[in-house]
Amino acid sequence: LDHEAIGRVQSRLDNLTKPPGSLGVLEDIVLALAGITGRQPSAPLRKTHILMAGDHGVAACGVSAYPPEVTPQMVLNFANGGAAINVLARHAGVELLLVDVGVASDLPDLPGLLKRKVAYGTANLAEGPALTREQATAALEVGIEVANDCVRRGAELLGTGEMGIGNTTPSTAILAALSGKPVREIVGRGTGLDDQRLELKIKAIEKGLKINRPDPEDGLDVLAKLGGLEIAGLAGLILAGAAARVPVMIDGFISAAAACIAAKLNPQCRQYMIASHLSEEPGHRVMLEMLGLRPMLTMRMRLGEGTGAVLGMTLVDAAVKILNEMATFGEAGVAESLQ
Amino acid sequence: LDHEAIGRVQSRLDNLTKPPGSLGVLEDIVLALAGITGRQPSAPLRKTHILMAGDHGVAACGVSAYPPEVTPQMVLNFANGGAAINVLARHAGVELLLVDVGVASDLPDLPGLLKRKVAYGTANLAEGPALTREQATAALEVGIEVANDCVRRGAELLGTGEMGIGNTTPSTAILAALSGKPVREIVGRGTGLDDQRLELKIKAIEKGLKINRPDPEDGLDVLAKLGGLEIAGLAGLILAGAAARVPVMIDGFISAAAACIAAKLNPQCRQYMIASHLSEEPGHRVMLEMLGLRPMLTMRMRLGEGTGAVLGMTLVDAAVKILNEMATFGEAGVAESLQ
Repeated sequence: LDHEAIGRVQSRLDNLTKPPGSLGVLEDIVLALAGITGRQPSAPLRKTHILMAGDHGVAACGVSAYPPEVTPQMVLNFANGGAAINVLARHAGVELLLVDVGVASDLPDLPGLLKRKVAYGTANLAEGPALTREQATAALEVGIEVANDCVRRGAELLGTGEMGIGNTTPSTAILAALSGKPVREIVGRGTGLDDQRLELKIKAIEKGLKINRPDPEDGLDVLAKLGGLEIAGLAGLILAGAAARVPVMIDGFISAAAACIAAKLNPQCRQYMIASHLSEEPGHRVMLEMLGLRPMLTMRMRLGEGTGAVLGMTLVDAAVKILNEMATFGEAGVAESLQ
Repeated sequence: LDHEAIGRVQSRLDNLTKPPGSLGVLEDIVLALAGITGRQPSAPLRKTHILMAGDHGVAACGVSAYPPEVTPQMVLNFANGGAAINVLARHAGVELLLVDVGVASDLPDLPGLLKRKVAYGTANLAEGPALTREQATAALEVGIEVANDCVRRGAELLGTGEMGIGNTTPSTAILAALSGKPVREIVGRGTGLDDQRLELKIKAIEKGLKINRPDPEDGLDVLAKLGGLEIAGLAGLILAGAAARVPVMIDGFISAAAACIAAKLNPQCRQYMIASHLSEEPGHRVMLEMLGLRPMLTMRMRLGEGTGAVLGMTLVDAAVKILNEMATFGEAGVAESLQ
């Protein structure tokens, strides 16, 4: 991080007509942007949200309230502009990029869709490794390549989002492996599981951990044995964003699983992450604690796609405007603190 | 509340391409808007943020890190567009209205400033009643009149904000009186008090409670003895917004004190409030619990002015767009839940 740039921005923040630090996270954000990029940010940031899609063999265990064909159906919905992420991306002035990293069926050519399929979905993690080490690496590389392209085209803030029926299951498995916590303590209802399917989900994850014996110190091992292709892609995106000194807005539970993998592969990349919201999925709080991140929004959201990340981006724009548009004490003729 | 309108909006929400309820508070907001107004909201809402200013006799006790002349200086800053609230109101597309309910000096004519001064600041609550019952009533009426004007001009969402050096002190006193909690448990550092001034603040509040003996069952008594003119004005604004079936976005600690007074005067008005953020002031959480409200944003902000309320308004706009712009399962050809 560029501490000289942080100092310059801190000094400007303290001269603005407000008590020092009184805008809390809005001030933290511009300090982080300064540290990451080495310069004072100016609004509006050029923001790109990347939504990665992939399917999951473990969906065969009945771990989702929705059938797997919803994954490609939703990718079409994204391309047509009808999903929640489209509405919120338009609201926030964010470019949306779709990436097929591993949808289980062939998708047509669609506007805004990058076809980078590594496999037709993962294998069933409850029966063996979800991915080979080679597949996991290839999916990481997809994310790295996409991030680098976005940065080359001028993106100043990247967002993470995903679509993949069943993908809270691998995310929970990853968290269990990395944290050592019992599955039952961190599992949630995903898109809205009933009690019966929740038990199937717990059993599938516990079986997957037992069969695969992932090494919690080896991020790639955890990713390959338990992960998803879109999760791997997002982990690569985060790593490459950090390497290019571009901040990454982390969405909810599945994106945080990718962030935990990225942080295991390179702990330094945590400094380049901004947490957006706290999701309803109980394990999300545990992940954010592991990452040392604090969420800005508590909206009881649990949709994924990056809906929280894109709302979080509107707060980053607000923060940058605060830095650049507020008057100083001197300009406004306002008295400073007595202390 | 209009339960038929709520039912219509709930039915549309459940047909949109997302798991039912998965957008959490975004869904709650449009349901609340439907219940309050009796119709399906459409974006963007016409939003007016009202910033009320007043001075406080108790500032003489050294309870603030800033001198009282900052109140009128900041009103000038608001009128000139240089304060945090100006930046965020522009960001959110919100009209900003300034009201002098009780600044201790005469203000010049300023664009966007309504002069409705009830008194040149309050008396010192540590030495006797801050306001007479008549003054408190007059300030409530200012808020009612301003809200009614805004509604007449087409406002569909009102925001509360304030400026008044020392005003976390009366707000804390109001909370102590209404909740019965010890001052030391709910007091905070306001704009950034050091330990010494914090002790002065605690002593002034404790003295004010002892001398004035406000009746916790009589909202007007609590308001007059401990309150501020801008707090009374905001309480009137909230009551009138609710009466006109217009939702009111509540900002931080001082606005929540006004909301607690409004709720004591008419408990029904709580249904018309939307909580924006959780401030750093420790008593704010207690107030929100008393009001039965849950904040959307946790940004460690403690500036006031309505900075949290205006950020919250951007989330309301996002919610309304979700309702109106998302595709349904039928339109998008996406399969529904298996359960």
